[in-house]
Amino acid sequence: MTVLIRGGTVVNADAEHRADVLCQGDKILQVGTDLQVPAGAEVVDAGGAYVMPGGIDPHTHMQLPFMGTVAADDFFSGTAAGLAGGTTSIIDFVIPDPQQSLMDAFRMWRGWAEKSAGDYSFHVAVTWWNDSVHKDMGTLVHEHGVNSFKHFMAYKNAIMADDEILVKSFQRSLELGAMPTVHAENGELVAMLQQQLLAQGIRGPEGHPLSRPPMVEAEAANRAIAIADVLGVPIYVVHVSCGEALDAITRARARGQRVYGEVLAGHLVVDESAYRDPDFARAAAHVMSPPFRSRENQAMLWRGLQGGNLHTTATDHCTFCAEQKAAGRDDFTKIPNGCGGVEERMAVLWDAGVNAGRLTPSEFVRVTSTNAAQLFNLYPRKGVIQPGADADIVVWDPKATKTLSVKTQHSKSDFNIFEGRQVTGVPRHTVSAGRWVWRNGDLRAEPGTGRYLKRPPFAPMFTALERFKQQHAPTAVAR
Amino acid sequence: MTVLIRGGTVVNADAEHRADVLCQGDKILQVGTDLQVPAGAEVVDAGGAYVMPGGIDPHTHMQLPFMGTVAADDFFSGTAAGLAGGTTSIIDFVIPDPQQSLMDAFRMWRGWAEKSAGDYSFHVAVTWWNDSVHKDMGTLVHEHGVNSFKHFMAYKNAIMADDEILVKSFQRSLELGAMPTVHAENGELVAMLQQQLLAQGIRGPEGHPLSRPPMVEAEAANRAIAIADVLGVPIYVVHVSCGEALDAITRARARGQRVYGEVLAGHLVVDESAYRDPDFARAAAHVMSPPFRSRENQAMLWRGLQGGNLHTTATDHCTFCAEQKAAGRDDFTKIPNGCGGVEERMAVLWDAGVNAGRLTPSEFVRVTSTNAAQLFNLYPRKGVIQPGADADIVVWDPKATKTLSVKTQHSKSDFNIFEGRQVTGVPRHTVSAGRWVWRNGDLRAEPGTGRYLKRPPFAPMFTALERFKQQHAPTAVAR
Amino acid sequence: MTVLIRGGTVVNADAEHRADVLCQGDKILQVGTDLQVPAGAEVVDAGGAYVMPGGIDPHTHMQLPFMGTVAADDFFSGTAAGLAGGTTSIIDFVIPDPQQSLMDAFRMWRGWAEKSAGDYSFHVAVTWWNDSVHKDMGTLVHEHGVNSFKHFMAYKNAIMADDEILVKSFQRSLELGAMPTVHAENGELVAMLQQQLLAQGIRGPEGHPLSRPPMVEAEAANRAIAIADVLGVPIYVVHVSCGEALDAITRARARGQRVYGEVLAGHLVVDESAYRDPDFARAAAHVMSPPFRSRENQAMLWRGLQGGNLHTTATDHCTFCAEQKAAGRDDFTKIPNGCGGVEERMAVLWDAGVNAGRLTPSEFVRVTSTNAAQLFNLYPRKGVIQPGADADIVVWDPKATKTLSVKTQHSKSDFNIFEGRQVTGVPRHTVSAGRWVWRNGDLRAEPGTGRYLKRPPFAPMFTALERFKQQHAPTAVAR
Amino acid sequence: MTVLIRGGTVVNADAEHRADVLCQGDKILQVGTDLQVPAGAEVVDAGGAYVMPGGIDPHTHMQLPFMGTVAADDFFSGTAAGLAGGTTSIIDFVIPDPQQSLMDAFRMWRGWAEKSAGDYSFHVAVTWWNDSVHKDMGTLVHEHGVNSFKHFMAYKNAIMADDEILVKSFQRSLELGAMPTVHAENGELVAMLQQQLLAQGIRGPEGHPLSRPPMVEAEAANRAIAIADVLGVPIYVVHVSCGEALDAITRARARGQRVYGEVLAGHLVVDESAYRDPDFARAAAHVMSPPFRSRENQAMLWRGLQGGNLHTTATDHCTFCAEQKAAGRDDFTKIPNGCGGVEERMAVLWDAGVNAGRLTPSEFVRVTSTNAAQLFNLYPRKGVIQPGADADIVVWDPKATKTLSVKTQHSKSDFNIFEGRQVTGVPRHTVSAGRWVWRNGDLRAEPGTGRYLKRPPFAPMFTALERFKQQHAPTAVAR
Repeated sequence: MTVLIRGGTVVNADAEHRADVLCQGDKILQVGTDLQVPAGAEVVDAGGAYVMPGGIDPHTHMQLPFMGTVAADDFFSGTAAGLAGGTTSIIDFVIPDPQQSLMDAFRMWRGWAEKSAGDYSFHVAVTWWNDSVHKDMGTLVHEHGVNSFKHFMAYKNAIMADDEILVKSFQRSLELGAMPTVHAENGELVAMLQQQLLAQGIRGPEGHPLSRPPMVEAEAANRAIAIADVLGVPIYVVHVSCGEALDAITRARARGQRVYGEVLAGHLVVDESAYRDPDFARAAAHVMSPPFRSRENQAMLWRGLQGGNLHTTATDHCTFCAEQKAAGRDDFTKIPNGCGGVEERMAVLWDAGVNAGRLTPSEFVRVTSTNAAQLFNLYPRKGVIQPGADADIVVWDPKATKTLSVKTQHSKSDFNIFEGRQVTGVPRHTVSAGRWVWRNGDLRAEPGTGRYLKRPPFAPMFTALERFKQQHAPTAVAR
Repeated sequence: MTVLIRGGTVVNADAEHRADVLCQGDKILQVGTDLQVPAGAEVVDAGGAYVMPGGIDPHTHMQLPFMGTVAADDFFSGTAAGLAGGTTSIIDFVIPDPQQSLMDAFRMWRGWAEKSAGDYSFHVAVTWWNDSVHKDMGTLVHEHGVNSFKHFMAYKNAIMADDEILVKSFQRSLELGAMPTVHAENGELVAMLQQQLLAQGIRGPEGHPLSRPPMVEAEAANRAIAIADVLGVPIYVVHVSCGEALDAITRARARGQRVYGEVLAGHLVVDESAYRDPDFARAAAHVMSPPFRSRENQAMLWRGLQGGNLHTTATDHCTFCAEQKAAGRDDFTKIPNGCGGVEERMAVLWDAGVNAGRLTPSEFVRVTSTNAAQLFNLYPRKGVIQPGADADIVVWDPKATKTLSVKTQHSKSDFNIFEGRQVTGVPRHTVSAGRWVWRNGDLRAEPGTGRYLKRPPFAPMFTALERFKQQHAPTAVAR
Repeated sequence: MTVLIRGGTVVNADAEHRADVLCQGDKILQVGTDLQVPAGAEVVDAGGAYVMPGGIDPHTHMQLPFMGTVAADDFFSGTAAGLAGGTTSIIDFVIPDPQQSLMDAFRMWRGWAEKSAGDYSFHVAVTWWNDSVHKDMGTLVHEHGVNSFKHFMAYKNAIMADDEILVKSFQRSLELGAMPTVHAENGELVAMLQQQLLAQGIRGPEGHPLSRPPMVEAEAANRAIAIADVLGVPIYVVHVSCGEALDAITRARARGQRVYGEVLAGHLVVDESAYRDPDFARAAAHVMSPPFRSRENQAMLWRGLQGGNLHTTATDHCTFCAEQKAAGRDDFTKIPNGCGGVEERMAVLWDAGVNAGRLTPSEFVRVTSTNAAQLFNLYPRKGVIQPGADADIVVWDPKATKTLSVKTQHSKSDFNIFEGRQVTGVPRHTVSAGRWVWRNGDLRAEPGTGRYLKRPPFAPMFTALERFKQQHAPTAVAR
Repeated sequence: MTVLIRGGTVVNADAEHRADVLCQGDKILQVGTDLQVPAGAEVVDAGGAYVMPGGIDPHTHMQLPFMGTVAADDFFSGTAAGLAGGTTSIIDFVIPDPQQSLMDAFRMWRGWAEKSAGDYSFHVAVTWWNDSVHKDMGTLVHEHGVNSFKHFMAYKNAIMADDEILVKSFQRSLELGAMPTVHAENGELVAMLQQQLLAQGIRGPEGHPLSRPPMVEAEAANRAIAIADVLGVPIYVVHVSCGEALDAITRARARGQRVYGEVLAGHLVVDESAYRDPDFARAAAHVMSPPFRSRENQAMLWRGLQGGNLHTTATDHCTFCAEQKAAGRDDFTKIPNGCGGVEERMAVLWDAGVNAGRLTPSEFVRVTSTNAAQLFNLYPRKGVIQPGADADIVVWDPKATKTLSVKTQHSKSDFNIFEGRQVTGVPRHTVSAGRWVWRNGDLRAEPGTGRYLKRPPFAPMFTALERFKQQHAPTAVAR
């Protein structure tokens, strides 16, 4: 299939300029002004529109088995919803149970993901430790294109990684040239606060944010960053939700450390008042960790994006329906954690970011696509409109408006945390691997067309870190 | 015994003024100008001298069993050395082995301390957790005058407290009105770094600071402070040795948290170059944790004292002789950790603090005595020259000079980390509980004259914290 | 007159304890338990009450000529209102016009102040510069008991001090051992913003805070602090109103600089929404500089007080009546700047501070009295309950409640910025210089009984700064 | 002329990849693997080399009239030296005298620059203010391709801009879509310190850094940034030399402000000990403002580059010979300020940056070329290797070594601040506008071949700032 997207403004992370984009097969062939129309090419008029790299959501959980149930969106419905919103790639998570082989878990998730309609890849969680974990990490990196490992610092008595696991796994990641990532919440404090709140009679969803205050997140973020600093490994902090955790990242970056932060679309615009909604279902539908925060925290997160201390935007898309959420009717600690957003992320970022004057279009591309591609070493295959890159493109209509709603969403979830939010700026068309998957409101996703993305280890920063380490190698004193 | 100290400048934490001080029995009876000489009183001329509260060293380890040996100074020699230096009270540590009953350990230490020549008290370490520990903490507070508990975040596989212990013990301390204190170093990182260094062939004392870089300390300090913040309990960080850890305290104080920091005289003036001394014995003699740091860190610690972010000065006095240190001849991780200083602390602080223009005399009193008394609820019995206070007094000669040296020290140790340092400003006389214990260079310490100091719980800050918590109590949403 | 205040809890900055207080003449004679009643003494029962040092308001403007009018409270009504609220001393300001002799202005203010009912002193403003200003500063310090100079960094084309004046006056203050103080707002920015707002049609009081955003204050605070740091002089920042300015202080203190911050009772509890009140008179009544801020800023200011980065609480008491405020009916820049509070300060601080669990009673004393006394070298004559101190005492009833209101206030102003605020904890009695001036709701202020307070230069911090400077004196290189 | 650079590794700010680069005329025509050799093309083997965008030095002063003399390098020798070092564009400064017309000065500098061998552009300094300055700023932007204005906050009684000028000029820059830049040093403090030092007998070059301590720079940086923040204009701080000034930038960026920082190659590797060199000539040769700093500051500057808080590297190339420097033989304030470096900048950055593991090659390109191009709106004409960009290319040999020295430099200066520094990684060839200007050590610079670069206003960030402002426009209250 050959497609010529004509007359739009191409936006990359470095600049924007008027240009046509010619795609052939699954690749971009040419970018330039007044490109000639090849025989058989379909020509699409992008006048008045922005032509941008397809979005990358580096944090989703499709059909995740969690807290006794399974997330509502599977890899087809979840990736399809992404395509409708301009997101052409996701990075999901393989989460082995403690004692479960990493390779077994990885194969299981790979199987589930075969029905994906968009491209996908996997971070793999390290939830326990022994020699087989050490070995499997190597196998995953060397043979299966995994270059990032996830660590949950919360969820005590389940998948929580304590300091010993963090230290060992970070060290192993460094050897392998893979990026350690952390869900930063101090699980011991959460457990203590949950017990105290339940004992005080706080059993509803309002207890959820009270059990996970900002300092709980900030402590864990600071700890993970410090461990990474001492070992000399880069680190990526997922879903930074509050100023205090952002501060830990900002401080580390100011001392030159290679620390990266991710923020969720939801944390940028949804606030904690949702948990005090008198309707249990609505309140419970917002239960995710870290929780939504105060408006002051939202302002700080935007500042983090603007100042370059936060790098990627994601969703932690992990949908549970009202029936599933009802498991915690009488005990907020039993409400399955998770919210959606994979379809809405880019529109929310454009509207509250670019329209509001917080971000330039190039900065929008950077935080919705390019930075994720670079950090997880998919660049320049992904994250940029240039010859040779994958033909993952969103044609963005900056004037069109839409009201976000569960009624029009493509996720299988029965709730939308952005319900009623009107946005200006939506995807007019989406191209994934050279195919039209979203065309003027028509979703053309097909199961199994998404491809597994192998990500090589040793992104350039690892080389620099290695050189730095050599220069500062300790020496023995002769005595 | 009645003593009139005449004509000096009385220095308290709030002000200095010319006044006579009359002591009767073990108490100060009067402070004022031109006091009449009671019958039988001994009159001492303090002209040209400062008359200050006896020093309190809130961090010593006399005759500590540690790393397979026992510290060289026992409770007599250690407290006697303190008296010679103007320090009239120490707070030492009871350190139960994991699984050892806190009460058993407490009784053991009480027995060892009976020979003390100066007043003493005990922090009690929480090195493990079960119901008996929970119960014993209560007994210690209610019946034995303990109002502070210590937690070692380092020393993995020995006395290290993990997050679960920290959370539980801090919570228990809060209920009891007792101050949690922490030795802040991330034990997992230390263990990993020790292994790596030994594997790289770094086996000498130079490996010691490399295995405990500032970030290892800063992480732990930040973690303990965050836990305390979430639980609403005050916290005291012992031996802050580096700018990064100080920053964690400074940040917390800036957000209003009741955090207190201690700094050692050694960390203020001795630097890390000692570990690269070609002579093993000298290098090993400096092995303590946290290690001595760079000069930049010294400057930062002074700033912390000046700006009110550090509150007390201590020594961690814990002496091991060359023979003991030699246990780590071929492996720095086996060198018993500890250095002296109880005798030199006040002179070092005066010289490098007051003479250097960093501290006023009142600030000197605050950080060598008053703050420790207030934080550990010994005030105004200790820490101030006023009627009713204990007659613990140092008559300070600001013009006299001395060269600090192992040759003239009163500690039983065979090393002095301040060797050769010339100071101006030394104790001319020391009064402890109304008795002359140091008189013009004559040490009159007597075993067993020191008294055990009971410290009541619930210092005023606890009341404020409790009120604040009530005001911010969570509420349930009616649904 | 001899008075025995019996059975209360004496609260000083260092501790609280049960004690009787005996006053004779204008001094405190004895503090102790079970004091004997001297012949002729009046005995007051202070059971259940706190007995604290009389408040010091270090920032008031009685009968100030300003913006074409004169403040409504004169030195009698203003100091009397203070006594009713427990404040027994004020430090007001002599503000010479540019080109006016400092000595002339000083004499003028001294004359106005003779009718004061409470003790008073003066900071003197440096609003211009030439040799006579340099000389008069010396005269004021050496002969008239002035030890602090004020600099307005705002009010362009009026009393604004530019950098040249700041540098010269700070340097002169250092030589004299006097504290420079600053009103920190960048006057150039204020002038530009005022013009822009008026041009945009924003002419009402809502324009006032918009013309003086936090960064305008923070810039000036940082600048003054930097200048002081470079010259090696201490500095005191008046009416810190926002987190950004507080941060400048906090950072400086963290690097050991001797910087002090003052916060107004109003800024701690009144917020900026007042300026959008549809009633012009109410909105205009809140016009003062810096303006009231958002609630987030209030929280930060409390943290500053708690963490020791703010030291004193004041009011900037400077009242203008509705008729006076009406001068800016059509142009907010013409509304006379000023609000009241000298009577309410201590009750507001107690209620929102001590009752809310933010401050201990001792900390309350420190920030309402002791610190001001120490910083401006009135201590221990003022700021403490101890023998020899002035008999300035407030007997505080922590259970009594009151609703603050213009109807019950003693100020001549026709407005109260705390209107309707209910407080628990109010002065039951006030003693000033040994006389009852407020007794169970009966105000017994008498014109002319207040005394002018001479404040000596060279508080102890100056000696330390001088020593530090000597140690770091630059040296020439021999070439 | 057609050139094919074959077999190298093309490094751009976003990534590096093996590719050939075909240049035709003054542009890059193609970038790709296995490009065909056009007829007549010269083929250069770049095997083992990096092919990078020519460097941009955004801060030079060729033939500057300053302090009574004129800089030694004129626009030919200066740009030629740049080409030898891989720098193909400079941005120099037009500096009108106070009262001199901006247009007159601009024309004068344009004339001087006609002999340039490399491309060049001009920032224009605003050193005074009246209506003609306001108008000329518009003319320069609209008709002459100037999009940045410079402000000297130092040099009192000469070109110093006070707050009034800063506020007015920043506001005007915002309207015009031009970037304000500042030389950040508080001129009042410098003047006072110079006087004090001379009075103390410090007359040699060692007085220079003492008269300009870090806080003097930090204050000014913070002030300029605050003014920019209040007005909503971006800002660029030239030659950030110390941690304290960097902190001001870092704080502003953390709150989302669009602040950019420049660092000089010299400040990254040369330290302040140079000023105490017993040889006057050597010491004086290092006199520039801000001065060289301590090694700790160097470490902080590197951290700033790594963490993204500093964006560009420059030189402030402004050379004065020994004879000229001798004007300050007896008074350091009379030594002409300035040092060289335009030739050495890239090699120093590569060696101390990339080789030392502080920067990746892409980061090197970003800070030596791309960021400058983007900030001053020359991108993507400059700053990137891609079709359509100017053929400004450096072929970098990462293995070749060189010893930097006055003996081998191309500058006309008689000194080299990097004298004796051995670097690994040097330019093998330089292409400027498609021409070989440096070929294997052969400099082929020709006077007059350099082109004046017009830079359009309103870089994308201005649009975002404008939108943000509209969203936050103040509203009047109806009364």
